Amino acid sequence: MEAYLDNSATTPCLESVRDIVVKTMMVDYGNPSSRHQKGVEAEHYLKDAREKIAATLKVKEKEIFFTSGGTESNNWALTGTAFANRRAGCHIITTAVEHAAVRMPLRFLEDQGFEVTVLPVDGTGHVDPQQAAEAVREDTILVSVMLVNNEVGTLEPVEEISRRVKEKKPSVLFHVDAIQAYGKMRILPKRMGIDLMSVSGHKIHGPKGIGFLYVNEKVKIHPMILGGGQQQGMRSGTDNVPGAAGLGVAAWEAYQNLDQAREHMFLLKDRLMRGLANLPEVHVISEEGEKSAPHIVSAAFPGVRSEVLLHALEERGIYVSSGSACSSNKKSAVSSVLEELHLKPALLESTLRFSFSPFTREEEIDYCLENLGELLPVLRRYRRR
Amino acid sequence: MEAYLDNSATTPCLESVRDIVVKTMMVDYGNPSSRHQKGVEAEHYLKDAREKIAATLKVKEKEIFFTSGGTESNNWALTGTAFANRRAGCHIITTAVEHAAVRMPLRFLEDQGFEVTVLPVDGTGHVDPQQAAEAVREDTILVSVMLVNNEVGTLEPVEEISRRVKEKKPSVLFHVDAIQAYGKMRILPKRMGIDLMSVSGHKIHGPKGIGFLYVNEKVKIHPMILGGGQQQGMRSGTDNVPGAAGLGVAAWEAYQNLDQAREHMFLLKDRLMRGLANLPEVHVISEEGEKSAPHIVSAAFPGVRSEVLLHALEERGIYVSSGSACSSNKKSAVSSVLEELHLKPALLESTLRFSFSPFTREEEIDYCLENLGELLPVLRRYRRR
Repeated sequence: MEAYLDNSATTPCLESVRDIVVKTMMVDYGNPSSRHQKGVEAEHYLKDAREKIAATLKVKEKEIFFTSGGTESNNWALTGTAFANRRAGCHIITTAVEHAAVRMPLRFLEDQGFEVTVLPVDGTGHVDPQQAAEAVREDTILVSVMLVNNEVGTLEPVEEISRRVKEKKPSVLFHVDAIQAYGKMRILPKRMGIDLMSVSGHKIHGPKGIGFLYVNEKVKIHPMILGGGQQQGMRSGTDNVPGAAGLGVAAWEAYQNLDQAREHMFLLKDRLMRGLANLPEVHVISEEGEKSAPHIVSAAFPGVRSEVLLHALEERGIYVSSGSACSSNKKSAVSSVLEELHLKPALLESTLRFSFSPFTREEEIDYCLENLGELLPVLRRYRRR
Repeated sequence: MEAYLDNSATTPCLESVRDIVVKTMMVDYGNPSSRHQKGVEAEHYLKDAREKIAATLKVKEKEIFFTSGGTESNNWALTGTAFANRRAGCHIITTAVEHAAVRMPLRFLEDQGFEVTVLPVDGTGHVDPQQAAEAVREDTILVSVMLVNNEVGTLEPVEEISRRVKEKKPSVLFHVDAIQAYGKMRILPKRMGIDLMSVSGHKIHGPKGIGFLYVNEKVKIHPMILGGGQQQGMRSGTDNVPGAAGLGVAAWEAYQNLDQAREHMFLLKDRLMRGLANLPEVHVISEEGEKSAPHIVSAAFPGVRSEVLLHALEERGIYVSSGSACSSNKKSAVSSVLEELHLKPALLESTLRFSFSPFTREEEIDYCLENLGELLPVLRRYRRR
């Protein structure tokens, strides 16, 4: 048996995604910038994908820009708005638990003379909206907060943060990294005060190498990749039609069955958390039920190093993650996000992330629990004293 | 019948490309950054693709970096080296016939305080290596010259330009936009003095949304997209495994049969050029035979606006390009590259580009010529006086 519980790292593509990708690679392969029929046809695929995505967010089609993925979306959102709004100020606010694709571009912006305030989080990874508002200064131009934490599943109160920040300074732009959230919950940028939002295709059974950035039409942003002027001049390069079309289908499917999918994932989460609670010496880090995301459970297994447990599970066909798989830094075993939660070193070193998709089956959870039950006592025998 | 003669805009994927893309989307779908078997497996696809590509250029695997396409490769090569070498100087040299994906990032660099010298070209689009060398100053850090012009097929003497430039100042970096050249000719960066080289997947029957930048290991370059540290920290973001694997296969296939493919394309080119010469009032712009690229023929049809002829051909299933399809600026009918060749306005307005791939058939050329023969006299009846 196989249990793929690493869906927050990546997911396989849907068959419907594969079909449209293959069709646009092989048959309707035109370049949307071509002026003949094959170009027009290709352009239709882009338009259709944009329409599908815009509908899931209740935003305008022209506010959706395709990128090469979540990381490009985050980089572009941050550097593109920072440089475009530099005259209004140089101060940016973010949180201590952002993904490297937000942290690193912000570090780059610091080198360029911007000042970044990093908001701390509490023991469950939450940012305090009050603190966010207090951090706003006269020269603040941008706030970036993730919606679902990729390692723990914490839901940040982005709507309240945005409201309080904008009460204090209405012109501040609010960016949300929604890479782990999109497709897992209803997100309405206009109602939630989100001006820019990053999404990745391969986290929702869409293709790798594609994502999008939602940009409210009123936002001032510079393009990051320049050239032929595709996508209203905001993101040049031959349009990735197969990627965009595949992402459109994946987005549509995710929101078509969202309620059932969420219910199913919450059941899986509950099943896993109850199972973990019944195992000796397991510390569940993620919050239960709807207090955190439906598809991420982080738990520590004191006495077993996470790498050791990960490989022991893998030998039995169970795939999980230690820390964030989005980082290729395979040497550093300890996650910076977990450190921010002030976990004890024994927990830090022994944490695994289990992540689901709407297609994860209950048997996979049971199989994982069963094997954890068998493996933990064996592995703990070799515990260092 | 259909004649797709717009292969320089984009190409359909090979079946072997489709197969590996589907396999890595559906079955071997892991994230190379995952520490378990599915990640390791995915990493193998990347390594294999890099190996295949590096072999076509006789360079090291670690000198190949995957990007989202040719445009990103050009943007990164130019801005990444300019900022990394700013202390050595602020002067950059390029040519008057570069693609927008080179021109626009250079314009951005000008806004950032860099100075750009633009070399003129002669009536066939060639840069004079002597002039290039003369343009080198004490503060020159970078020279960017395309290998095959995307609109006319002109082969720039990059090897000689690099040699003369480096004779004058050895530390100058030499970037080549090889997007129209790769897969159509043997390119050996080490022998040709190329330090950075941009390539796109979808021009060689590979996937859209993927490309690579060759970066000589000695080159100092900043990353453009920051985050999880993938690709030696030089290009973050979840690796696009299907794209990279597809590009690896397409690259391998292109160089496996290069000699036959070139011979075939030169035959097509000769057939088309001879056919065009037999039509009344046709001005062939591209140079014949091996003086220019095997797959691009640009020709003007005075008395017929290129848009009109393009659509008339399209109605008969013949797909060609007016100017460069890589630009989405569908309004501007006149190409800036053609203007640099100092063509008369009557030619400028009536130019079409015919472009082949190794899979283009002779019948397609004949069908196109036959229809041009029929259409031209009819369309010229409506000629404006």
